[in-house]
Amino acid sequence: MRKRTSRETIYRSRSLTSLMLLTLSSAVDEIIAVGRRFDARGMAAATTGNYSVRLENGRIAITVSGCHKGRLVSNDVTQINLDGLPLEAQTPSAEAALHAGVYRLYERVGAVLHVHSVVSTTITRLLPEDTDVVLEGYETLKVLPGVLTHDTRAVIPVFDNSQDMPALARKVRARFATLQVEPPALLLRGHGLYAWGATVEEAERVVEALELMMSCELETLRIGRRM
Amino acid sequence: MRKRTSRETIYRSRSLTSLMLLTLSSAVDEIIAVGRRFDARGMAAATTGNYSVRLENGRIAITVSGCHKGRLVSNDVTQINLDGLPLEAQTPSAEAALHAGVYRLYERVGAVLHVHSVVSTTITRLLPEDTDVVLEGYETLKVLPGVLTHDTRAVIPVFDNSQDMPALARKVRARFATLQVEPPALLLRGHGLYAWGATVEEAERVVEALELMMSCELETLRIGRRM
Amino acid sequence: MRKRTSRETIYRSRSLTSLMLLTLSSAVDEIIAVGRRFDARGMAAATTGNYSVRLENGRIAITVSGCHKGRLVSNDVTQINLDGLPLEAQTPSAEAALHAGVYRLYERVGAVLHVHSVVSTTITRLLPEDTDVVLEGYETLKVLPGVLTHDTRAVIPVFDNSQDMPALARKVRARFATLQVEPPALLLRGHGLYAWGATVEEAERVVEALELMMSCELETLRIGRRM
Amino acid sequence: MRKRTSRETIYRSRSLTSLMLLTLSSAVDEIIAVGRRFDARGMAAATTGNYSVRLENGRIAITVSGCHKGRLVSNDVTQINLDGLPLEAQTPSAEAALHAGVYRLYERVGAVLHVHSVVSTTITRLLPEDTDVVLEGYETLKVLPGVLTHDTRAVIPVFDNSQDMPALARKVRARFATLQVEPPALLLRGHGLYAWGATVEEAERVVEALELMMSCELETLRIGRRM
Repeated sequence: MRKRTSRETIYRSRSLTSLMLLTLSSAVDEIIAVGRRFDARGMAAATTGNYSVRLENGRIAITVSGCHKGRLVSNDVTQINLDGLPLEAQTPSAEAALHAGVYRLYERVGAVLHVHSVVSTTITRLLPEDTDVVLEGYETLKVLPGVLTHDTRAVIPVFDNSQDMPALARKVRARFATLQVEPPALLLRGHGLYAWGATVEEAERVVEALELMMSCELETLRIGRRM
Repeated sequence: MRKRTSRETIYRSRSLTSLMLLTLSSAVDEIIAVGRRFDARGMAAATTGNYSVRLENGRIAITVSGCHKGRLVSNDVTQINLDGLPLEAQTPSAEAALHAGVYRLYERVGAVLHVHSVVSTTITRLLPEDTDVVLEGYETLKVLPGVLTHDTRAVIPVFDNSQDMPALARKVRARFATLQVEPPALLLRGHGLYAWGATVEEAERVVEALELMMSCELETLRIGRRM
Repeated sequence: MRKRTSRETIYRSRSLTSLMLLTLSSAVDEIIAVGRRFDARGMAAATTGNYSVRLENGRIAITVSGCHKGRLVSNDVTQINLDGLPLEAQTPSAEAALHAGVYRLYERVGAVLHVHSVVSTTITRLLPEDTDVVLEGYETLKVLPGVLTHDTRAVIPVFDNSQDMPALARKVRARFATLQVEPPALLLRGHGLYAWGATVEEAERVVEALELMMSCELETLRIGRRM
Repeated sequence: MRKRTSRETIYRSRSLTSLMLLTLSSAVDEIIAVGRRFDARGMAAATTGNYSVRLENGRIAITVSGCHKGRLVSNDVTQINLDGLPLEAQTPSAEAALHAGVYRLYERVGAVLHVHSVVSTTITRLLPEDTDVVLEGYETLKVLPGVLTHDTRAVIPVFDNSQDMPALARKVRARFATLQVEPPALLLRGHGLYAWGATVEEAERVVEALELMMSCELETLRIGRRM
């Protein structure tokens, strides 16, 4: 862990996955499938989390509010626009504005996945204020888009939690504007992890890789010392 | 964690799920299904736990004593009345009186789920006497019925374990009568978690949400300090 | 945990499951099924563990040496006699003598299940010499055959590990002869858990219940103090 | 844990599984299956890990770079030669040279499996420099090829991580040349575990057995003392 500095330059030049825009029907299928996988990994407790995909029609497909992500059906996915506003009768996730904010910020992003895992919730509650999660020296860092070596570090920005999603989205936008490279994820304190990528699969990989590395960080904190 | 005060006012005005009374057949299906899901999550070891549903005929469907909750069959569910007394030949769960007590206390409750998880057993054994579990600042608090923000705290009342279920049910009733709002769950020391809701699904969400947050609490206790 | 005293009287009068002797074919089916369940619970790593069932012909069906218990086939089960000696061409588990010893000691035992779990391995390595695992105050104690309240304690005898199975079986026999009631299980230091019952299902319940309670014990040790 | 000495003589005379060379088609089937099993055990997060099998044509079948090991399809396996060089259009795992090095070093090895588990990543990050993982007194040691008793110890060599795989392969070769017996596995610091055997099944057993024992080691470190 470490205090924030004014500018982060941790990510190297990237060989990025290309954005591939989906039809609503394909997006729904991918969202249902990733929900099942996250649930099997213990990352979709109760109605926590929400998932979205950028569609070929310029809209965003996003899970509706209050459903269990491990047992999604087609009707649990609705559409919003890039301002996070609902385009259908169903209520989208309360965090629609944050999803929309990521899509507006990064053109290459095709999917945003958010989970409340025990690991991401605990680690962000333990962190001092204004401190980000820094992962350093892990081979698994190479899973993050554009990272080519273990001999680097990734800074995952941490934001204080808020119920005012548009305000939170603005804070994210403001801080990310100061970063030279696109981060692969962000953390909300006591809340969970947001990760993104060109595809659902790429965003899912970021979730799994960060979970693995943050699990190692927590394990190390438990032990509290080198052997 | 914190000492009890005379009155708890932690829950806000609620947008509650409506009670939907089930036929016995539907209740049995839901009970079997939730048992499988809890078992897959490691919350149905051996013959631990018991589950009940309020029926449209005014009776309570409840698991029989001594069966494995991950492999329930129709015959493992019997009926009791609102006094917790058996209405069929099979022996209901030894904790029938506690289930019945919750249904008598809260008219909107349609399902009660009880699990012996490692997390709920350990945390209640570690707590000092007369101390409740207090969960504060978690986004996942919003899963609890009626909670609309992370910026609150939920008090989950803890009772000492007892084999005298009618006496324990009376203690619960007496203490709950002093609460201004209906709590979503209670804990029995060294025993486990009881959670309830309008539907099996709502009660299950409470179990999963509390497990997630209490797992974070235990994780934090393991580490024993902020970073 | 506590030092051994000369006699243990922790188990109460029992309402025991009746012994039901199986055909070889039924025993094989039950052994294959319990192996899959243990593997799903993370209790059948590599080729660890072995399982046996008392047959209606007076023989013992037991897993052969060196197979993965999560993927057993019929051919992975062989027969031994009550002295632990092989009755077929295949090599039975190296621990056949210990299984046989339990069947000779307790007539009502119909199944013996042995697992190398992380929990049982770790807890027995941490225990001082000549110290047993004592579980006290857990509601889940009631899963153990004959235990009717949480307000008791169960002593699970711990033996030092050995490659001389007949000698180890004799030590178990000698110590168990001093006990007034049949224990539900034993632990081998740095090795794992043996549990038994009238049926595979009863023995499995003992494994799951002890795993749950020993997990709570380890969790408490990790935290190292009351809150 | 302990400092390295010049020569390790921990493994006893072996009763080794015979090498059985596979066709490409069989190798692909086994690789896909072991990936699913590792994923179910939480040992195939994101795109981590890679698996290879020695073929009857003298080549090596190996997973291609960047695919999720829990959802492999036939096309995710390619072929390399014993120098680690690609023989097909697809890019093999970046760690092909290390796999090839193990096959060149040990003629009896038919499969090499590599995983980034939380346990192996954490334990190697905690270890002081030039220190190996030493596992002692575990019954589960007997799962390792050629080990016949718990009353021994296994040294799993630890190497510093590197992105220069040919150089790392040379370091492994140089150090292994000083060992009297073939080790069953090696660890890369902050990276993960490599294990091998005559067959995929034997290598998988080594992974599972080492995970179990290293989990016990970490659990003991968490507790930090005997009870």
